[in-house]
Amino acid sequence: MERVIKLIVSYDGTDFAGWQVQDGQRTVQGVIQDALATIHGSPVKVIGAGRTDSGVHAAGQAAHFHTDKNLPPEKFRDALNYYLSRDVSVLKSTEAGPDFHARFSAAARVYQYYLYFGPASIPHFERYSLRWLKRPDLKRINEMAALLVGEKDFTVFAASGDSSRSKVRVVHSASFFPQGVFLVFKIVADAFLYKMVRSIVGTILNLDREGLPVENFRDILESGNRDSAGPTIQAKGLFLEKVIYPDEANNII
Amino acid sequence: MERVIKLIVSYDGTDFAGWQVQDGQRTVQGVIQDALATIHGSPVKVIGAGRTDSGVHAAGQAAHFHTDKNLPPEKFRDALNYYLSRDVSVLKSTEAGPDFHARFSAAARVYQYYLYFGPASIPHFERYSLRWLKRPDLKRINEMAALLVGEKDFTVFAASGDSSRSKVRVVHSASFFPQGVFLVFKIVADAFLYKMVRSIVGTILNLDREGLPVENFRDILESGNRDSAGPTIQAKGLFLEKVIYPDEANNII
Repeated sequence: MERVIKLIVSYDGTDFAGWQVQDGQRTVQGVIQDALATIHGSPVKVIGAGRTDSGVHAAGQAAHFHTDKNLPPEKFRDALNYYLSRDVSVLKSTEAGPDFHARFSAAARVYQYYLYFGPASIPHFERYSLRWLKRPDLKRINEMAALLVGEKDFTVFAASGDSSRSKVRVVHSASFFPQGVFLVFKIVADAFLYKMVRSIVGTILNLDREGLPVENFRDILESGNRDSAGPTIQAKGLFLEKVIYPDEANNII
Repeated sequence: MERVIKLIVSYDGTDFAGWQVQDGQRTVQGVIQDALATIHGSPVKVIGAGRTDSGVHAAGQAAHFHTDKNLPPEKFRDALNYYLSRDVSVLKSTEAGPDFHARFSAAARVYQYYLYFGPASIPHFERYSLRWLKRPDLKRINEMAALLVGEKDFTVFAASGDSSRSKVRVVHSASFFPQGVFLVFKIVADAFLYKMVRSIVGTILNLDREGLPVENFRDILESGNRDSAGPTIQAKGLFLEKVIYPDEANNII
């Protein structure tokens, strides 16, 4: 009988051309599908909740696939990890209901961006965070972040590759907070436009660096004009932290 | 006038064949000497406090070199970082007294070993920690660690490549403690034998895994017989955290 298996997947995005399969590129979806094909002896398609871009990491990407293999669900984790390389790992595999779809069933996605400061780079932070020279004014950048919350048109933060018809998204929360030596930007939304998080972080940090007030960010957000936003910040500091499904939505938002 | 410059250096040991220069190998000492040679236009020797082994990391290795270049001391940091690759970084460069020697002036070295647990590996921890299947009995392993403290002959934990005449070292402190998702082993000693920390951690964890009592560790320590110790644990979880000099020795020990 065909079953649906849900996966929680973590990966170091450094050496991947993103999640989504592309010809001739090493992608996360691609290496998982290769491992599933080896296990099943035939091609198996895996669907991810978020199509993370090249270089973006995941602490808890969600995905699903269909199988007729008669294995206890947690054994798919171990079988996949046996074939996967060190930079991608299945943290959990469980049986989901027949209607579960990693992308369409998701209620919200949580992304985090990691920044650190100082006159010299720290080699052990290099792959997973961005060194930023100016320590930001935390009050100012959090006032900017608060303006993102709500149901809004985020056209201004969509990269040119974004193909979604509507640019309206619901941001549940957005804030910067210190965590150890890092300053972390955390944003929770129903869904995101292409490069939206990196565009938001780049815009806020550039305004802060230039000492510009919160009103400038409000103007950019309301302008709807992509050219008014700041540059997209580097992928390496960005993590897809978690994907939230309706039955667990109360936990996080 | 010739001056002595002290460096604090951090590196990701993954892609280095250790600190010490070896023909045809990429070493940390080697790449720093290459950068110094470029800056000076002639060869410059750099001496490190600890000769970390292949794959071992450093958060705060100390080193020194002699220079007749008339630069403010902190500029050596920036000049070196300009030439160094991403997996090694000079955190600090200061002028030391004429008699300063990174290795011979050092009063103590601090090493830390990072462990984590769970049924699946975490890609972002893979380079900088070791996943261990059994969560150890913290009381038992700390009772074992406490037996290391004092002035003792550590022959039992010296690897065959160790060439030091005396195997007596003074361990100031040694303990395991939780830090976030990690269990950290921290050890402070005047100096260490070749692969001593990895041999200690491997021995303690293997005794714990087999459910053996603290007395077994005491017997191994007192036996002086290298064959009685457990296996050397992987390099990737080990960090040279800090090197302590007499003027700052009270801070840490």
